[in-house]
This record gives sequence, C-alpha cells and structure tokens, in this order.
Amino acid sequence: MQEFEGSALNVLKMNFTISHKDGDARTCKLVLPRGTLNTPVFMPVGTMGAVKAMSPHELYEIGAEIILCNTYHMYLRPGEGTVAEAGGLHKFINWDLPILTDSGGFQVYSLSPLRKISEEGVTFRSHIDGSTHFIGPRESIEIQRALGSDIVMAFDECTPYPSSYEYTLKSLELTTKWAKTCLKYAEKPQTLFAIIQGGTYKDLRLQSAQQLRELNFEGYAVGGVSVGEPKETMHEIISYMASELPADKPHYLMGVGFPEDILAAVEAGFDMFDCVIPTRTARHGTLLTSNGRVAIRNSQFRHDHTPLDPECGCYTCRNFTRSYLNHLFRAHEILGIRLNTIHNLYFYIDFMKKIRAAIEKDSFISFKRNWLSNYLKIH
Amino acid sequence: MQEFEGSALNVLKMNFTISHKDGDARTCKLVLPRGTLNTPVFMPVGTMGAVKAMSPHELYEIGAEIILCNTYHMYLRPGEGTVAEAGGLHKFINWDLPILTDSGGFQVYSLSPLRKISEEGVTFRSHIDGSTHFIGPRESIEIQRALGSDIVMAFDECTPYPSSYEYTLKSLELTTKWAKTCLKYAEKPQTLFAIIQGGTYKDLRLQSAQQLRELNFEGYAVGGVSVGEPKETMHEIISYMASELPADKPHYLMGVGFPEDILAAVEAGFDMFDCVIPTRTARHGTLLTSNGRVAIRNSQFRHDHTPLDPECGCYTCRNFTRSYLNHLFRAHEILGIRLNTIHNLYFYIDFMKKIRAAIEKDSFISFKRNWLSNYLKIH
Repeated sequence: MQEFEGSALNVLKMNFTISHKDGDARTCKLVLPRGTLNTPVFMPVGTMGAVKAMSPHELYEIGAEIILCNTYHMYLRPGEGTVAEAGGLHKFINWDLPILTDSGGFQVYSLSPLRKISEEGVTFRSHIDGSTHFIGPRESIEIQRALGSDIVMAFDECTPYPSSYEYTLKSLELTTKWAKTCLKYAEKPQTLFAIIQGGTYKDLRLQSAQQLRELNFEGYAVGGVSVGEPKETMHEIISYMASELPADKPHYLMGVGFPEDILAAVEAGFDMFDCVIPTRTARHGTLLTSNGRVAIRNSQFRHDHTPLDPECGCYTCRNFTRSYLNHLFRAHEILGIRLNTIHNLYFYIDFMKKIRAAIEKDSFISFKRNWLSNYLKIH
Repeated sequence: MQEFEGSALNVLKMNFTISHKDGDARTCKLVLPRGTLNTPVFMPVGTMGAVKAMSPHELYEIGAEIILCNTYHMYLRPGEGTVAEAGGLHKFINWDLPILTDSGGFQVYSLSPLRKISEEGVTFRSHIDGSTHFIGPRESIEIQRALGSDIVMAFDECTPYPSSYEYTLKSLELTTKWAKTCLKYAEKPQTLFAIIQGGTYKDLRLQSAQQLRELNFEGYAVGGVSVGEPKETMHEIISYMASELPADKPHYLMGVGFPEDILAAVEAGFDMFDCVIPTRTARHGTLLTSNGRVAIRNSQFRHDHTPLDPECGCYTCRNFTRSYLNHLFRAHEILGIRLNTIHNLYFYIDFMKKIRAAIEKDSFISFKRNWLSNYLKIH
C-alpha cells in the first residue's frame, strides 16, 4: 500500500482516462492519490467504517480497490471529530486505498424518523438516539473533509418513489443549488462528484444532468434509483442517463445492484457501482455463483462435500465445502457469515474483472449474453 | 501443516515426555500424529466445529496447537455421519492440527431439557428440536471415532453442584464403569483420556482418581469443576488433584478458566486447559491485557487512538486502536467481535508461552506473583 503524507495529497488530484471502448461500455483508469481504480469497478459498502464481517486485509486480498463509507453514519457515530482526531477515516479503519463517502442525503431521507427540508439543508433526527441534527451542503462537505475520504459526493435530496412531477422538479433545483455550494467548499485533494436526481421523469433527469454538467464537476453520479421504482423504470433510466453525462468524466450509478443490473449499466456506459447486495445476501445465506444463486441453508447441501463453486478462487471456495457452509449457517456461526461475505464480494470483484476483460476484447455483448444465460439458469 | 493418511495414523500413537519441572509445575511435549502440544497448553473451544468468529488460518496464526470440539453438538448437528462422510472433523472444518473432543457428558447434563441416567448411559432430549437420543460410553466413543478427533474423552457423568455425598459416590462409580467400556471400544490412533469426578468431596475425588488410575489411561482429566461451586472449593480441588494423577501422563483440567485459575492449576501440575472465557468475553466486549481487563465499550476509549495493548503482537493490536474497537462494538459490527476474539485468544496463547518460559527458567512462582500483580491492578 502506498502511504501519503498530507503535503503529498495536496498536490495530487484525480486523473481519469478512458482505456478502451466497446460500444458505450468502457474501461477507464481513475487515478487518485491513494490508488487507481480500474473501471468498471465495484465498491464494497462499509456503512459504519467496516465492510460488514470483513477485515481490511481480507478486502485487499479479494482485490477491492476502493470502499464506500456512509457520511450520515460516521457523522452520528463515532462523529467526524473522532475520526479526524484519529488522523482521518483511512487511519481510523486502517484502510490505505481510496474511500468514497456519500453525501449523507440518502440516509437522512431513508433512516431519519423526522426530516424537515429548507433551502439551507435538512433538519433530522438521529435514528440512534432521536437527537436533532442539521446537515446542509456546506456541512456535508465539511464532514466529508473531516473524514478525509478521497471521493466526496455533493449533498443532494434523494426524492422518494413515487414523487410528483412538481415536487421532483423543485427538488432537483434545490440539489443543483446545493451542488454549487458544495463546489465552493470542496477542497483538493478530495475529488467532488455531483449527483443527478429527477426521479422517474426523463425530462427532469435530463434537466438535472444539464444543470450539473454546466458546473463542471470531476465526476457524475446518478442517484435516486433503486429506491422502490419498478425494475423496468430503473433500467430505462440507466439506458439513457450515461450518455447524458460528460464522456470524459467518471459515471457512477449509486446503489445498484444485482449483477444483471450492473451488466445493463456497463453496457450503457457506467463506470462505478456500489451496493449492499453481496454483503447483505451473504448474511442471509444467499451465495452468488456463475451458475446462479445458492441458498446455502437448503438441506440439499447438507451432504454436499464439494466447494461452493469449484471454479472460484476465493478463500471460502478454496478451503471449505457446501456441507460445512450449510452447517455454519444453520448453527448461526459468525464464521459462516464471514465465509459467505468473502465469497460474494470476491464474486462481484471477479465479475467486474471479467467485464473489463470482455470490453478490452470488444466482446462485451456476447460476454453479457453468455454470462446471463449461465447465471439465470437456476436463478 | 503435516498431512496424515489413514494408514500412517494407525501406527502412530501419543508420546508424552516431561521437559522440565519447577516445583510441581512442568513443561511437557505431547506428541500426537497430527502435531505436538507444548504444555502447559490452552485449547480454544470450537463448540460446533468453529472457534466462534475465527477462521482456522487465524488460529494457526495466533499459534493455537490444538482445538476442542464438543461431541454433543457435532452429534446433534450436523451429525457424526455427515462429518465422517466429509472425511472426518479435520477435513470438515479444514483444521490440520490436533483436535480434542469431549465425551458429550457435560452438555447432556447442562443443555438437555430432559435426561434419564441408567447403568447403560443417558437418554436425553435435543436442546435444538426436542428429539430423544441415547448416548452411553460405547456410543460416545463411536461418535468420537466417526468425528476422527485425536484425543477422545471417556464418557462420564458430570455431577451438578451441589450434589449429595451419596449421589456423588454412586455417580463416580458409574463413571468408572463407563470408563472401562470406553477403554474396550477406543481404538488407535485416537488417544483416550479418563475423567475424574467426585464433586466437591475430597475422599470421593481421590477414590475416583484411584479407580481410574488402575485402568491405565493415556491421559487424565479432572472434570466437574467450575460448575457453580465456590472459587475456593475449585482451587482446593485443583491444589490436591494433580498430584493424584500419574506423573508420567498428561493432566487436563476441564473447562478452567480465568488466567488466575490457570496459574494456580499450572503450579499444582496441570498441563492442559480449555475454556470459553476468551471467546465469550470477547463477544461481550471484555478484553484481556497484561494490565487487566478492559471493557472496550466504555466511553473513556472513544477518543483513545492507541492500540489496546501496545506490547501485544496480535493482529488487532498491530492494526487498530481502542477508539475503533469501541466504535465497532457500539455499532454491533461483526469485525469488532472478530478483532476482540483474535486479541483474547492470542492473549491466552501468549500467556501459556510465558508460563512455559518461566517454568523452563525455574522462575514460575515469581513469574506468577509479578504477572498477577500487574493483571489485578485494574481487575
């Protein structure tokens, strides 16, 4: 792992280059002071400063290049002040590669029992102890600066699904206004991405993209998807959104998703992904393999003394059998959750590697077709 | 790790040699086909085929030489047949070093909602699904043979505390009778240990020891301690029991205990220990250090950006701070449980190393005094 002192970080900034294009799908290199992302890239989610059940060294081992942490959660507990005291999030959690922090916007809407939006920001109650807090665009950037993440997200309003046209319009304009404030307060070496909103309304999505494009951010995210809308609606947004983003900037599709969603998004030109699916489903005993999903608790695995996926190179598949994973899950052993999580994250990261290789060989579409036909066999 | 084929295991047997004596404290080598135990040794407890929260490779890394698994638990789930199908417990759980299995006796008494003891064995109900089962001495040995552990324990009745003199006498005689049956059914390469019972009655303890000594087992355990009796009573039993066991055989004190108990037992001449304290307390946020116990949840650690124990060489202390451990515990992160468990087990195994070094230098008593004075400072 490279180590950077504060001074070195100050002179380094993001560098983004497209390596290869295959249709709209592309491989890129996003160079950050703490490491390079090879895109399309998957970012494991470390909500509260830990990717659930994983150690940082296990994340290095499976090839994670970046993780995501949630600003809302770190702000409430342990507090960005504690993290800053520790020397920033990287030192606090002992992770040397890049970290992306979200803006806090999504969690304020999804987790807070009370929220009041004004032009300045959002007043909300902590889901932990009910205490009252305020975060606006300036506060979000300041919290993320204290955390010391590598990529920071502009504070947005994530409109719930469904929302009216009028509400969504008003909301995206507030998001644009806040984005301007974020630009003002963000500082190198942190890289600031904007978040496109606009709900399920195509013209509002385009309007949001246009407004934010004009502000010339270093990266663009599409937010407010996978929030309850029908899958077809999400795929429609995916299909037209990437081409509305500046081609020479990274395209990040927030909170998505299942492997089939990622394939669709890569095809449309998205570069970056995060999702809790691999870690959350692992804890519930659902394992992802190239032949589809496996519910490891099922009794059919009790006497199956073969690896979960003989083709897989992860620690779990190299060392343990389906029978043992079935036993650990039924016995509620933490090791079972750990081994499931290692496998699912390795699966996602390996999946992205295969996607990149296919793009480089101009065979992404046939890769996608073959991959899906295997994966959906027993889905 | 050494690998042994069935045929090689058949010709190898336990070899026990005393390396050094310092008073009654002693260092020994217990050579088993799958590995050598340097005693006094601590055996992490892997109740259901996993040391809670740990991977086998983490156990190798902290220097564990042997683990214990519970026959009762493995019998009920996944069943010894499933384990045998997998090629035995070592293959099932992917652990190459020695495994000791207990007899199942203790759990039958402590966990089963119903138990009926006869001369032949015990009829009991599963604590998982209420189904009825029977285990006697022959069944216990057969289950342990199917599991394929390296050291197997004779089936005993663990008398509860308190028990009457009459009941305890009758019970220890049953344990002796069962021990004879176990001797008849046990087979190499497994090494069979007897378990001394006798409750809190010194003459019954001596009687049990005498009866079992005459049967010439390869190792002797003291069971039925740390079952609710006062601490002084336990220490009294510890102090006179080891000298009643054959000097040229390993002495195993079952289910004990806190570091201060282990020191007393080593002084009396015990060689082997197992206990859930390091793993269980870790899950509850209690960390053991050479300066005493630390409740990591306490708010005093929230802003403490130093390692838990700067002198400690474990993964947790080399990589993370008290502040982060405090955060992980408060946030209910599995990583917190993992890091706490790694530290506590490393602490126990390192503690045994220090004990062995002190014995080898004929300085066990002064080591014990100094160690306790540090440890009890903030106990």
